[in-house]
Amino acid sequence: MDIKQQAVQLHTELAGKLNIVPKKRIRSQRDLSLLYTPGVGEPCKLIAEQPDLVFNFTSKWNMVAVVTDGSAVLGLGNIGAEAGLPVMEGKAVLFKEFGGVDAFPICLACQDTEEIIRTVEYISPTFGGINLEDISAPRCFDIEDSLKKRLPIPVFHDDQHGTAVVTLAALINALKIIGKKKTALRIVINGAGSAGITIAYFLMNWGVKDIVICDSLGIISPARKDLNPFKANAAQKTNPRNISGVLHDALRDADVFVGVSGPSLLSADSIRTMAKDPIVCAMANPDPEILPAQAKAGGAKVIATGRSDFPNQINNVLAFPGIFRGALDVRARAITEEMKTAAAYAIAAMVTDKELSKGIIVPSALNKDVGRKVALATALKAMEQGIAGLKLSETELIAKINKLIS
Amino acid sequence: MDIKQQAVQLHTELAGKLNIVPKKRIRSQRDLSLLYTPGVGEPCKLIAEQPDLVFNFTSKWNMVAVVTDGSAVLGLGNIGAEAGLPVMEGKAVLFKEFGGVDAFPICLACQDTEEIIRTVEYISPTFGGINLEDISAPRCFDIEDSLKKRLPIPVFHDDQHGTAVVTLAALINALKIIGKKKTALRIVINGAGSAGITIAYFLMNWGVKDIVICDSLGIISPARKDLNPFKANAAQKTNPRNISGVLHDALRDADVFVGVSGPSLLSADSIRTMAKDPIVCAMANPDPEILPAQAKAGGAKVIATGRSDFPNQINNVLAFPGIFRGALDVRARAITEEMKTAAAYAIAAMVTDKELSKGIIVPSALNKDVGRKVALATALKAMEQGIAGLKLSETELIAKINKLIS
Repeated sequence: MDIKQQAVQLHTELAGKLNIVPKKRIRSQRDLSLLYTPGVGEPCKLIAEQPDLVFNFTSKWNMVAVVTDGSAVLGLGNIGAEAGLPVMEGKAVLFKEFGGVDAFPICLACQDTEEIIRTVEYISPTFGGINLEDISAPRCFDIEDSLKKRLPIPVFHDDQHGTAVVTLAALINALKIIGKKKTALRIVINGAGSAGITIAYFLMNWGVKDIVICDSLGIISPARKDLNPFKANAAQKTNPRNISGVLHDALRDADVFVGVSGPSLLSADSIRTMAKDPIVCAMANPDPEILPAQAKAGGAKVIATGRSDFPNQINNVLAFPGIFRGALDVRARAITEEMKTAAAYAIAAMVTDKELSKGIIVPSALNKDVGRKVALATALKAMEQGIAGLKLSETELIAKINKLIS
Repeated sequence: MDIKQQAVQLHTELAGKLNIVPKKRIRSQRDLSLLYTPGVGEPCKLIAEQPDLVFNFTSKWNMVAVVTDGSAVLGLGNIGAEAGLPVMEGKAVLFKEFGGVDAFPICLACQDTEEIIRTVEYISPTFGGINLEDISAPRCFDIEDSLKKRLPIPVFHDDQHGTAVVTLAALINALKIIGKKKTALRIVINGAGSAGITIAYFLMNWGVKDIVICDSLGIISPARKDLNPFKANAAQKTNPRNISGVLHDALRDADVFVGVSGPSLLSADSIRTMAKDPIVCAMANPDPEILPAQAKAGGAKVIATGRSDFPNQINNVLAFPGIFRGALDVRARAITEEMKTAAAYAIAAMVTDKELSKGIIVPSALNKDVGRKVALATALKAMEQGIAGLKLSETELIAKINKLIS
């Protein structure tokens, strides 16, 4: 059986990847009276008087909604809410396994931006955080921005920020190998959807000065008249040399290629036009923009993909479970750029100096210490920034995290 | 410690009553590839092509949303979404314990009828059923009716129908004791909220001819000019002798009193005005319309309340877990009057002829066989009515139910 058949078989056997399991079973009349009526009335009354107690008496403190509208599921496109559910359940499994976070899939039968915003706002009381997933650009930007303004809990579109955080982690370590400085880099990002634009802004926030984004029609620049407002904004903020042309024009003398686009767009010859010791992150899934062997033949010094069967897998699972773990543990009201940057450094630091090499710039997706360290870094940064609802010492925080990620 | 303090302590210790638990853990790269990308893409594609497969590949087949807007939580009134969460989590615990149903609390930060309908419709793809809970009348009627029309899955407002089903079960057994016929009964229902009106219609559908409903201003009749549309409709459908007056006028010569109202509204003298061998179901919680000792002093033959510390507890937990179990197991598209009636008979039948007595007209809320029998009766009726998406033999059904309620 190939992997597709195996996956169908496993999904059939499991009949859903999630169970809702009560923390306490009902064995007696007393259990019934305390967990339900009449006893439950008292915690309810106390929350009505003092709303923050909802974090003490309910599962909200650890519950994240994984919200999609099914409009951009994996590489499958707009397949709708029901067809997106296996992915969202899978995401919830990853949240629990690597972050100790209870996550629940919310698949919306609705693709209107305003309606999605309103729906997520309405259902938010149950949740301590909102993870947006597989919502197509450019709607995903408006949805995330509005929800961040309206909700007092973290809102995080993983396709944007999870990818950006792991890309930065990989870049931090790759630069140690090739010995270049972030401020002197030229970076080309191919793909101007949710991931591409957000990676650009995140790397600029970190200190990169020269980033050029390309979409399928070429370099994003103010000269382009066909851009949606988000790409037009990116045209203003990126491309400092104001160049025009196609992807290959952008690539000339670039130090880093970041691909969040489609399969087989580059050849070894393309890589040869880049600067000395180029870094190639070809993250299109399942087929990268260029296969590692070709990139190497073209002179790439460090090569990463989104795939587990090649070295250096840029996998969001390195980021989102720990980021939410940390945010939830200190009741952070948001996930800031600084928290994400701290998370990226924590991921990068999981590769020891001894391990660090062309073939190991990011830790394994299965390494559960990553979530723990990312959670700690994220939570500490939230407290430092004054956006945490809880104040914990580092020792308390480590104990809490270790208990939850097991 | 009194029960309030004990409940607060338990809720603090548990910090939420629900865990989301993956059915399979991720221990290897292969697990990751099958439960998440790239493997998960194949079940997604198959669902996009053949939507019913969502019941095979995801948790939808067994997942019920427990939806509230926090407008009528227990006897606490309009305490809001967050304060209602402990009750909804408790309900989810009961669903799992007594019905083997995965239930998830959705507490809405919104109390507008149309917005609630739309929100539940939008989030419905994740769920195999919708349990509405603690939504105030008369909005609850519109919300349930609209959702029933719009959704292809069961929608059930438990405050209405769960209460009606268990009341009917109690009445079926009480009539065996006093030897009266359903068609000759005079029944008074005090309380014209969601439960009272629905109990009236449900008992009429079963065969009762003479039901009078009272609200706090007295008997509901066409003469009343102060009625909302739902009460006005009830005035047309009930009260066949077209009487007017207060609760005590209605009570004269009545065979059955059903209270879903408030504490201490009746005295022993009130009961003395009723017909011979009256049945008194005083279900206001925590304080019934009349205490059992007083009802007995007034001549009541069979007495039930909503409380566990008196005999004959009319508790919804006897109904909703099994009803949803049965509906889900055959993918019923709705929960019909006939399915609810079948459930009521199944509950009543759990009291053996030997056990049946004034003090035992309903089974214990802790008896897990109740959910199994209710599920079977509900599922068989759904198949008989042709509204089931799956056809199972009785043997298959029993095996499925016994596996899930354990």
